[in-house]
Amino acid sequence: MRNKTILLASRPTGVPAQENFKFEEREVPELQEGQVLLKSLYVSVDPYMRGRMSDAKSYVAPYAVGEPISGGVVAEVVKSLNEQLPKGTVVLGNLPWQQYIVHSGKGLSHINPDIAPLSYYLGILGMPGLTAYFGLLHIGEPKPGETVVVSGAAGAVGTVVGQIAKLKGCRVVGVAGSDEKIAYLKDELGFDEAINYKTTQNMNQAMTKACPNGVDVYFDNVGGEISDAVYLALNKFARIAICGQIAYYNHTTLPSGMRVEPILLKKSALMKGFIVGDYAKDFPVAAKELADWVQEGKLQYQETITEGFDKIPEAFLGLFTGQNTGKQLVKVAEREV
Amino acid sequence: MRNKTILLASRPTGVPAQENFKFEEREVPELQEGQVLLKSLYVSVDPYMRGRMSDAKSYVAPYAVGEPISGGVVAEVVKSLNEQLPKGTVVLGNLPWQQYIVHSGKGLSHINPDIAPLSYYLGILGMPGLTAYFGLLHIGEPKPGETVVVSGAAGAVGTVVGQIAKLKGCRVVGVAGSDEKIAYLKDELGFDEAINYKTTQNMNQAMTKACPNGVDVYFDNVGGEISDAVYLALNKFARIAICGQIAYYNHTTLPSGMRVEPILLKKSALMKGFIVGDYAKDFPVAAKELADWVQEGKLQYQETITEGFDKIPEAFLGLFTGQNTGKQLVKVAEREV
Repeated sequence: MRNKTILLASRPTGVPAQENFKFEEREVPELQEGQVLLKSLYVSVDPYMRGRMSDAKSYVAPYAVGEPISGGVVAEVVKSLNEQLPKGTVVLGNLPWQQYIVHSGKGLSHINPDIAPLSYYLGILGMPGLTAYFGLLHIGEPKPGETVVVSGAAGAVGTVVGQIAKLKGCRVVGVAGSDEKIAYLKDELGFDEAINYKTTQNMNQAMTKACPNGVDVYFDNVGGEISDAVYLALNKFARIAICGQIAYYNHTTLPSGMRVEPILLKKSALMKGFIVGDYAKDFPVAAKELADWVQEGKLQYQETITEGFDKIPEAFLGLFTGQNTGKQLVKVAEREV
Repeated sequence: MRNKTILLASRPTGVPAQENFKFEEREVPELQEGQVLLKSLYVSVDPYMRGRMSDAKSYVAPYAVGEPISGGVVAEVVKSLNEQLPKGTVVLGNLPWQQYIVHSGKGLSHINPDIAPLSYYLGILGMPGLTAYFGLLHIGEPKPGETVVVSGAAGAVGTVVGQIAKLKGCRVVGVAGSDEKIAYLKDELGFDEAINYKTTQNMNQAMTKACPNGVDVYFDNVGGEISDAVYLALNKFARIAICGQIAYYNHTTLPSGMRVEPILLKKSALMKGFIVGDYAKDFPVAAKELADWVQEGKLQYQETITEGFDKIPEAFLGLFTGQNTGKQLVKVAEREV
C-alpha cells in the first residue's frame, strides 16, 4: 500500500518554501492488538505551524528535522483491532501529514458526521472556531452597540469572530487583503464595514471612517501597521485579544514598531495574548454553542479546500500570501464508509 | 496679604523647563457666605502633570496657558464662612499652585492628622498609594512565591508596589537609577533585588539574573528599554500593569521600539493600562487597608520634601532627571493650628 508522508527537510529562515518539505514513502506496519489504521481524509494547514518549523522556544514544541510534520487531521478508521474505534469511525487528532497512520487510538476525538461536514471539525467546530470564541468572548467581552474590529477577517478565525460579534449586537469592521474578501465579509457574512489593507493608502483615516464611534474590541490575527491604525482609534477601556501576529511570523529578529504601551495607558485599555489551549477546560461548552449556531444557520462558514496529499505544502505556503478565504485545508481522500 | 500663584506660561516641547512656568501675585478676594480661605501646606508634584502641560487629548484635561497649574494639595482652613469646614480643618483637594485659595468647600476631603503626617495624604495614603494598590492587586494579582518587578521602584508609587508585593509573599525586584536608591530598596524596604539601570551595561542579562524563575508580574512606571528587558523574562500567563511611561512623556511623537505583542501572544500574557480614577468606587476600602498597613508599621514611606513655594517648578522638573527618592512634594507653609 502506497503511503506517503511529508517531513520537515530543513528549518526555514524567513518565509518558508517548498524546499523545507520532503516527501517520502513509508511502510505501513502490521496492526497490533488495540491499534487502528487511520486513513487521512482532511489535513489542516495553519499559520501557527510556521512557529513549530523554527527551533525557537514557543508555546508548542518545534517539529524535528527529518520527522513528519503534524497538525489537525480528520481521519477514518479503515482497520481496527480496538473495540472503542470500530471500522468506519471518523476521528479528529493531532496526526502526522501522512496518508495512512497506525495509531493507538489514544487522544483522538470522535466526530459526529451528522451535525456538519467532516471538514468543519478542522475549522468552525475545531481549533479555529474555538480560538475565535474564546478570544472574542473571554478577552474582548463585546457588549451590544460596541465596535469590534478583526484583522485577518476573511481567515478561518476572523470569519467566526466577526459573525459572533454580530450575534452579540456589535458593529463589526473587518480588515482583509482582497476585494473578493471584502465583498464576502460585507455581502455574505454581514460585516458592517471591511477595509482592504492592500489598496488603502491611509489606514488610519480608513479606520477612523469605518469606526465613527471608536474601537472597543480588537481581535488581532495580524499585527503590524494594521494594528497601529486600530490602536489610534481605541476607546477608553478597550480590550485587545492578540491571537496571531502573522506580520512577524517570518521575521528572524524581534520586530520593532510603534509602542502600544502609552496608548494602553492613555485609554486604560487591556491587551491579552492567548492560545486556544489556555481555555481547554471550557472546550465542551464552547463547542456545543458553536455547533448550535452552525445548525441554526447563525454562523456561515467558508473553506478553501485544496485537493490532493501532494498539495499540502503549497496550501500551507499560501497562508502567508493571503490566498485563502476562510479556512484553508487539504482534502486527501474520500471517506470509505 | 501676599499671595503667589504659578501659571503655565507656555506649553513645553519635549522636556519642560523653568520658562514654562510664571509666578504672579494675586489678590485674595473677600470671603462670601459658604466659602473658606485655604492656606496651602503641601503641594504634590507628579509625573502625570507633564501630560496636562500639553494640549494633546489625554485622560485629564490640559492646563490652560496663562492659568494656574493645579494638582494634589494639602491645605488648612484659615478662615471659614462654612459650617462644614471650621477653621483649623485640614483638607486634601485638587487645587491651584497658590499660597491662599478662596474655595467653595466642594470636592475637598477631610484629613485625619492623627493617623499619619499630613504629607502622607499626598503619597502613600493618597493618589500614589492608591495607584500602587490597584495596579498591583487588581491587575497584577500577585500570588505567593511569584516574582514581581517594578520599574521606577524608588518613586512614590514604586516603593509602595514593592512593599505590598512583599506583604503578599512575592520575590520583589526593583529597577531604579542610583546606587543610593538601590541601597534604600534592598536595605530599608526589603526588596530581594534591585537593578541600577544607569550603571548596568546589559539590562537583559541583569534582569534574567535577578529573576531566576522569570517574571510573573511587572508594574511599569517607566517604559522603554527597561520594559524590554522585563518582557524577555516574562513567564507564561504574566500580568503587566502599565501605570506610567515616563520614558516617553517628553516625546513629541509616538514612540517606537520593540513590539510587545508577539511576546504577549507567546506567553498568553496580559497587559493593562490604568489610572487610579478607574478604581474610584473602591477607594475607601483601599485607603483603609493602606492606612492600617502604615499604622501597623508594615509599609515604610519616604518623602523628598522641598521647602518653599518658589521651589515648586524645580521640584517638578527634578522628577524627570530622577532626583527624588520616594514621593516628591513641596512644603509651602506650616500648619497654623
